[in-house]
Amino acid sequence: MSFCLPLQDQFDTLEKHTQWGIDILEKYIKFVKDRTEIEINYAKQLRNLAKKYQPKKNSKEEDEYTYSSCRAFLATLNEMNDYAGQHEVISENMTSQITTELARYVQELKQERKSHFHDGRKAQQYIETCWKQLESSKRRFERDCKEADRAQQYFEKMDADINVTKADVEKARQQAQLRHQMAEDSKGEYLSTLQKFNHEQREHYHTHIPNIFQKIQDMEERRIIRIGESMKTFAEVDRQVTPIIGKCLDEITKAVDSIDPKHDSQLVIDAFKSGFEPPGDVDFEDFTQPIKRAISESSLSNSKETKSESRFSSKSKGKLWPFMKKSKLMVLFEI
Amino acid sequence: MSFCLPLQDQFDTLEKHTQWGIDILEKYIKFVKDRTEIEINYAKQLRNLAKKYQPKKNSKEEDEYTYSSCRAFLATLNEMNDYAGQHEVISENMTSQITTELARYVQELKQERKSHFHDGRKAQQYIETCWKQLESSKRRFERDCKEADRAQQYFEKMDADINVTKADVEKARQQAQLRHQMAEDSKGEYLSTLQKFNHEQREHYHTHIPNIFQKIQDMEERRIIRIGESMKTFAEVDRQVTPIIGKCLDEITKAVDSIDPKHDSQLVIDAFKSGFEPPGDVDFEDFTQPIKRAISESSLSNSKETKSESRFSSKSKGKLWPFMKKSKLMVLFEI
Repeated sequence: MSFCLPLQDQFDTLEKHTQWGIDILEKYIKFVKDRTEIEINYAKQLRNLAKKYQPKKNSKEEDEYTYSSCRAFLATLNEMNDYAGQHEVISENMTSQITTELARYVQELKQERKSHFHDGRKAQQYIETCWKQLESSKRRFERDCKEADRAQQYFEKMDADINVTKADVEKARQQAQLRHQMAEDSKGEYLSTLQKFNHEQREHYHTHIPNIFQKIQDMEERRIIRIGESMKTFAEVDRQVTPIIGKCLDEITKAVDSIDPKHDSQLVIDAFKSGFEPPGDVDFEDFTQPIKRAISESSLSNSKETKSESRFSSKSKGKLWPFMKKSKLMVLFEI
Repeated sequence: MSFCLPLQDQFDTLEKHTQWGIDILEKYIKFVKDRTEIEINYAKQLRNLAKKYQPKKNSKEEDEYTYSSCRAFLATLNEMNDYAGQHEVISENMTSQITTELARYVQELKQERKSHFHDGRKAQQYIETCWKQLESSKRRFERDCKEADRAQQYFEKMDADINVTKADVEKARQQAQLRHQMAEDSKGEYLSTLQKFNHEQREHYHTHIPNIFQKIQDMEERRIIRIGESMKTFAEVDRQVTPIIGKCLDEITKAVDSIDPKHDSQLVIDAFKSGFEPPGDVDFEDFTQPIKRAISESSLSNSKETKSESRFSSKSKGKLWPFMKKSKLMVLFEI
């Protein structure tokens, strides 16, 4: 035992280490839960964004969505909703494929860990019991040897004493023989207990305890594999939505590609054209002709302002413009 | 003018429509700003998440990151930080490439719009002024014709009256001639004003106003193209970070792939091994030999319990286990 180092409580150490392993798992579960909440929150904000800018139902705003640019914006809003949905998918899949699974696994792991340390302590108690039996067996043999020795010395003393009766010598001889026999019996029992102890001790250190440690090691390695799988799922769940988010973005681009400024202009022309033809040239009114004079006189006072209005405005503010319904020359936005 | 429809205030309508176009642009700017805030907020939460689970500096926790599974978690945290960074990039690029640009453009657009409507109103005022000149010119001609007519009637009346002097007849004749001449002059001026008005009116309806409407239409179409470009950028900015986010996810997977349960076990073995060899077989102590007796007697009373302790525990609670430093048979986790 030349390489002997101070004894250590290996089971305590391993108990602490495996508890740390469970803590790490629970920390990871908490981490993923936090992430799912962030995703849910992000998705909620994106959905609110899409809702906030949605045209109000049955309002004038809805009509605006006949314009291609407005339709592209509407498509953007709808795609933002789908985009949000994908982040909800991240959250849902992380919950079902990671946190729920790992939480169940942690319970199993706690049970398994408990059972290994229980087995370890039981083996420990058993070998201690064997040791106590050996000690007790050895002490009995030692005591019996002393008794035999003492009986032998007494017999030898009696045998050498000339004042002692033969009967007393014989009694002492028999007593010594009996004690010797008893010591021989104790020796036999001690030898058999020692043999049994050495066998159990070898089993304990070379089979039982190594087996338990191996099981703990296997458990630990399974825990590490399991957390690794979850970490991979963590990235995978995220990666899975990437192409769908990509499609959302493509849909926005596609909607934008169908924006048609000329078409939108035509809608404005169709909606706002007056259908009024531009006035032709004003005719010369010849007041030198006596025939026309009477007409001029009757219409003069009340027609001049009306005429001015009808030419340029309907409400006398001079802001209204008449245009043709169809013309080679000019329609609102249509040349 | 058979297709004449009621007059409409085309400029008012167009002013309203182009204002709506500006409102749409400003609404889109607001939408993108809202999106950038959501991205900033999302990134902030992801950064906080990464920070929250980071091992505390100079603590025992830091040592834990010698384990490959802990290192994979640390890599996950670091990648989440980069992931957050990409959403900050979305926010920054949307701000610089969309909101800042569009905000500047809206200012230009407002200026341009103002100038077109100013030109339109100026043209409107000009043609109204021409119309008023024509009306006034026509009224003067009409009035002068009346005066000439009246002077002619007066002259004819005087000429027929036998009680009137020749001088008075001559005066009335000259007066009638003068009035006739004045009416002729007014007619000439009226004709020229009419000719000018008809020219200006044709220019107005067939050139000036169509030009202004065309400019407004161009402006509108540029606005639609511009908002379309921004909408495309909106998707593009998002699309650009996708491969980088993909790399973050790949880095997580890569870190997970280097998780090595056997290596982590070895670290535990190296850290916790006791270096204590399992005890060998216990020897038989023969108390039947008188020589051994003296040794046995002196060590018996105080050594038996100590021996029991040194075999299984250092603190008498029977929990401590000795193991070998190196052994073919059994080391903690190493078989």
